[in-house]
Amino acid sequence: MTDTIVSSASKELKIGFAQPFVIIGERINPTGRKILAEEMKQGDYSRVKADALAQVAAGANMLDVNAGIPLADEPGILAESIRLVQSITDVPLSIDSSIVAALEAGLAVYQGKALLNSVTGEEERLEAVLPLVKKYGAAVVAISNDEAGISENPDERFDVAKKIVQRAADHGIPYCDIVVDPLVMPVGAINSAGKQVLHLVKRLREELKVNTTCGASNFSFGIPNRKGMDATFLSMAIAAGMTSAITNPLHEEVMQAVMGSNVVMGHDMNCARWLKKYRQPSEGDFAGGRGGREGRRRRRG
Amino acid sequence: MTDTIVSSASKELKIGFAQPFVIIGERINPTGRKILAEEMKQGDYSRVKADALAQVAAGANMLDVNAGIPLADEPGILAESIRLVQSITDVPLSIDSSIVAALEAGLAVYQGKALLNSVTGEEERLEAVLPLVKKYGAAVVAISNDEAGISENPDERFDVAKKIVQRAADHGIPYCDIVVDPLVMPVGAINSAGKQVLHLVKRLREELKVNTTCGASNFSFGIPNRKGMDATFLSMAIAAGMTSAITNPLHEEVMQAVMGSNVVMGHDMNCARWLKKYRQPSEGDFAGGRGGREGRRRRRG
Repeated sequence: MTDTIVSSASKELKIGFAQPFVIIGERINPTGRKILAEEMKQGDYSRVKADALAQVAAGANMLDVNAGIPLADEPGILAESIRLVQSITDVPLSIDSSIVAALEAGLAVYQGKALLNSVTGEEERLEAVLPLVKKYGAAVVAISNDEAGISENPDERFDVAKKIVQRAADHGIPYCDIVVDPLVMPVGAINSAGKQVLHLVKRLREELKVNTTCGASNFSFGIPNRKGMDATFLSMAIAAGMTSAITNPLHEEVMQAVMGSNVVMGHDMNCARWLKKYRQPSEGDFAGGRGGREGRRRRRG
Repeated sequence: MTDTIVSSASKELKIGFAQPFVIIGERINPTGRKILAEEMKQGDYSRVKADALAQVAAGANMLDVNAGIPLADEPGILAESIRLVQSITDVPLSIDSSIVAALEAGLAVYQGKALLNSVTGEEERLEAVLPLVKKYGAAVVAISNDEAGISENPDERFDVAKKIVQRAADHGIPYCDIVVDPLVMPVGAINSAGKQVLHLVKRLREELKVNTTCGASNFSFGIPNRKGMDATFLSMAIAAGMTSAITNPLHEEVMQAVMGSNVVMGHDMNCARWLKKYRQPSEGDFAGGRGGREGRRRRRG
């Protein structure tokens, strides 16, 4: 039972096999959001704050913070964003950048134990990021691609993840502080994308015993009814053993699927959270309709 | 790759590990449906026919037909219902009764290879039903309970299923003609009900190599937002390896979850069925919104 512990100044959170699924809000990310990018570049963080509060209100357990804006001072903007988000929410954060200097600037201002997003299997990145993870005592997202890019063979992606875990150990970072992203491909382009993830998540959990995360919405990229597909994909990934995801908590279908998955996995004791959210004043427990097949079981009993 | 082949007079259907998930429509069942029960008893089958057509139109791959009406001529009513349903639809049927004479009456009039629903691990029932399965060359649903009732220990339910498969072999019935129902408990009463099913479906598939089915709606019995829970539960059961379910195809959430699960499992080539159902005239493939994390992958690439 691997637990990855992250925290804010006042709150600790476990990502783990025996824990409710962890939703990492993806909204604070200027990629593809022109207005947000421009505002952050101009030092206007009002939308960043609003996105933080809205995602936490919607049920996000953590927030991913990304400041990837071309030709901008990413380290400075990321640090300021993290400082502001931590001043108005108490959920742990994922510090997200492809620039090492930005990751360090974020870690320097972060209060608590952050999730650093991310390291890959690329030599240069391993040796640049892992020392930061160790220095600041953070946890880290390990993305299973390397110099060769992203393999379409899930077992090759497993080998990359294994290499990252071993290299982290060399740096004194335990496997429980590594959350592997098996990489989710768009199923519209790769028909086996779903089976790849289910297979990989099982191997990562059984063989490396690591927690996992993913950019869930990549799966439905380019196909219609994305929210419906994201909901189904996430439930199936959770059944295979995935323990967190970077996704949009404002999508009701997705949150319902995650809450339902917690019930199915036995991680919502007495269905308490499900009942709290969906019970109507009019109906009590066990006031549900006909139990279908169960009706026949009873007759037979 | 186990395929359970069933058929009607004109159509063959495979339930299997490499096949799209099979939806067995549950509606033609008087249990808990007073009006339908009374009509069937009076020889009025108009609602039976309407339920058959509506379920097939909604995407049911098979239909379960049950005529369990207290103090009625169940064998006669079941046989007539099957004859009428086969006269207006071409999907294979599941002949459903707890009375052996009714199962035989249904088999006697059935055109094609039926799914007999069901046999249990009870000695008396094994020796009464298995000879019928062999005599009529049918497939059969094996429910994993016995004289001791339904064990709350999934591994004991596995042992019951194993006993049924072995006994069937003694009667010359191959394991590919047995579809095991691991028994789905209401999660509102048993918190581990979901984990039990996921665990059992994996064992049944890996160790007995049999196809599986379940009364999916039992899981949500007694809790609110049943359709939302049924959809999530089914997706997770499919991820664990379940290959069919007896459920209500008129519930849109459930059908969306099954269609999405077929995409995730790689059983909807090029997402053809998903696109056909959900694509709007306005949008083309790969015209979807921001790909979330994938946006960052591209930046990074």
